[in-house]
Amino acid sequence: MSKAIVALDCMGGDNAPGEIVKGAVLAANENKNINIKLVGRKEDIEKELTKYDYDSNLLEIINATEVIETGEPPVAAIRSKKDSSLVKCMYMVKNGEADAMVSAGSTGANLVGGHVIIGRLKGVERPPLAPLIPTKKGVSLLIDCGANVDARPSHLVQFAKMGSVYMENIVGIKNPKVAIVNIGAEEEKGNALVKETYPLLKEIKDINFVGNIEARDIPEGKADVIVCDAFVGNCILKLYEGVASVLLSKIKGTLMASLKTKIGALLIKKDLKKTLKSFSIEEYGGAPLLGLKGLLVKTHGSSKAIEIKNSILQCGTFKEMDLNNKFKEKLNLENK
Amino acid sequence: MSKAIVALDCMGGDNAPGEIVKGAVLAANENKNINIKLVGRKEDIEKELTKYDYDSNLLEIINATEVIETGEPPVAAIRSKKDSSLVKCMYMVKNGEADAMVSAGSTGANLVGGHVIIGRLKGVERPPLAPLIPTKKGVSLLIDCGANVDARPSHLVQFAKMGSVYMENIVGIKNPKVAIVNIGAEEEKGNALVKETYPLLKEIKDINFVGNIEARDIPEGKADVIVCDAFVGNCILKLYEGVASVLLSKIKGTLMASLKTKIGALLIKKDLKKTLKSFSIEEYGGAPLLGLKGLLVKTHGSSKAIEIKNSILQCGTFKEMDLNNKFKEKLNLENK
Repeated sequence: MSKAIVALDCMGGDNAPGEIVKGAVLAANENKNINIKLVGRKEDIEKELTKYDYDSNLLEIINATEVIETGEPPVAAIRSKKDSSLVKCMYMVKNGEADAMVSAGSTGANLVGGHVIIGRLKGVERPPLAPLIPTKKGVSLLIDCGANVDARPSHLVQFAKMGSVYMENIVGIKNPKVAIVNIGAEEEKGNALVKETYPLLKEIKDINFVGNIEARDIPEGKADVIVCDAFVGNCILKLYEGVASVLLSKIKGTLMASLKTKIGALLIKKDLKKTLKSFSIEEYGGAPLLGLKGLLVKTHGSSKAIEIKNSILQCGTFKEMDLNNKFKEKLNLENK
Repeated sequence: MSKAIVALDCMGGDNAPGEIVKGAVLAANENKNINIKLVGRKEDIEKELTKYDYDSNLLEIINATEVIETGEPPVAAIRSKKDSSLVKCMYMVKNGEADAMVSAGSTGANLVGGHVIIGRLKGVERPPLAPLIPTKKGVSLLIDCGANVDARPSHLVQFAKMGSVYMENIVGIKNPKVAIVNIGAEEEKGNALVKETYPLLKEIKDINFVGNIEARDIPEGKADVIVCDAFVGNCILKLYEGVASVLLSKIKGTLMASLKTKIGALLIKKDLKKTLKSFSIEEYGGAPLLGLKGLLVKTHGSSKAIEIKNSILQCGTFKEMDLNNKFKEKLNLENK
């Protein structure tokens, strides 16, 4: 099988280019079957690369002089900055010079550019952004957290199918449980979108649809693929972060409250830190934007090298497992 | 001023009638300006009352022979069980024999009965269920978490106004900050509902509308009144509980992992428990169903005496502050 080629936006995110380039080196040292194109200001990237040992056959610099900032209006940025690292990565995927791309840059520009420049797989109605979120049991795929805020039932049906393929092939969960976010467990509950979507999901033979999931049961890990429209998905994703962060700051405050608790804190600090890290959304690498002609993995703006590395490796698995053909298969089954 | 009369559903919830009756006694011992009607099976309530000292002028038993169970279909239950404690409480409010009612029984039956039996204030389009949720700074009102899953902009406008009146008068927050749940901070973001509602909220002169709030900022306490449709509200409320509960069970597991952490745990246990309790949704008493002819406070199914007591006291404040007239005033301002 041919090697996966991954275009890496080296100028996007708060820690670019340092952590991004470091992530590329880590990935190259872990998987020799991936060629990484480092896209961005040549001299900046070269400077970072001098810090590391790596196989120079696996890393190649593609010069791009412009940078899209996080605050820029996405559509205008994509249109005007043709020589930005982000837009250049997108054209590489579009033109088949790369199988996939990774970016820690502006979410808006990634969503818009993914759609407009890379383009959808034929038959995919709306490409969903699908981050992995931590649960009691491991991880679940929250699909969609992207831009499709007023989704239709047919979109959610495609999300369920693509999500199922993704969890089975990339995360390695056999026959993943697919559920739709709802405000109760009973079939007749929900808003108009969910009520219309439920019977459609129930009919699909080749996914393991388990019915409704209440938000309370998402952190419990009661389903592997969590289907919802992007408005609800965004609320879930951000509240996950918000509740965890406030709770932790409250716990920290308690631990520092007295001499007694400070001593106690010393004894549990290391283990507690590990536990809390395992429940941090940022630990699980980037979120794939699915259903495009190639894969786009959007990592957090605050991404460190480890998240970049994991995202590049994810691109490798995506190519290796031939995921886009598996998507086509799964989606076509419905169109019969 | 005349005393507030509160009808208490003594048969609803997992801990009925024991904790419910106990809550009534606690409330009566704290506030002599509330008359409590204990509605339910007379002999069961009498048996509980023998355990306590209380002013018998403040507590009166109203016999009701039937009980609505949590699992029953709400509409059918409301219709067929006319002599249930829940339905009897509702008729007491409807007929002016009580100013307000408190129930830990079936949420569905409370929402349906509140609407159908007690009835809406004239001009209120949909009565919202509005629990207080804990934040870093205190509490915020999450409005709506009830049954209005496919809400219209005009509903959300009323929620914003009623929520503002509630937080100002019941919780005592001057000029409460009102925000609408959205997936970004910018005005142009959101789904169709939010995009249509935003400019309407912006126009209202007598509420302190601060714009969008992302779910991440809700636990931070960045707004006092959090406006959303009930589908989103339900997801937020339940995810709050879910994330906190899973995180806590993970922390507990860590504390029990080794002898060292067990010793550390001993030293911090008491303080940590207090902190975590302050972030538990169940600590904040019942959720009011606003915009009815009287107040209905729905408490958790698992309510203990303390939540019942706080909910009864809330009913007292509701009457004392003449909240329904304040609602009418605020809502009429818009209808000009």
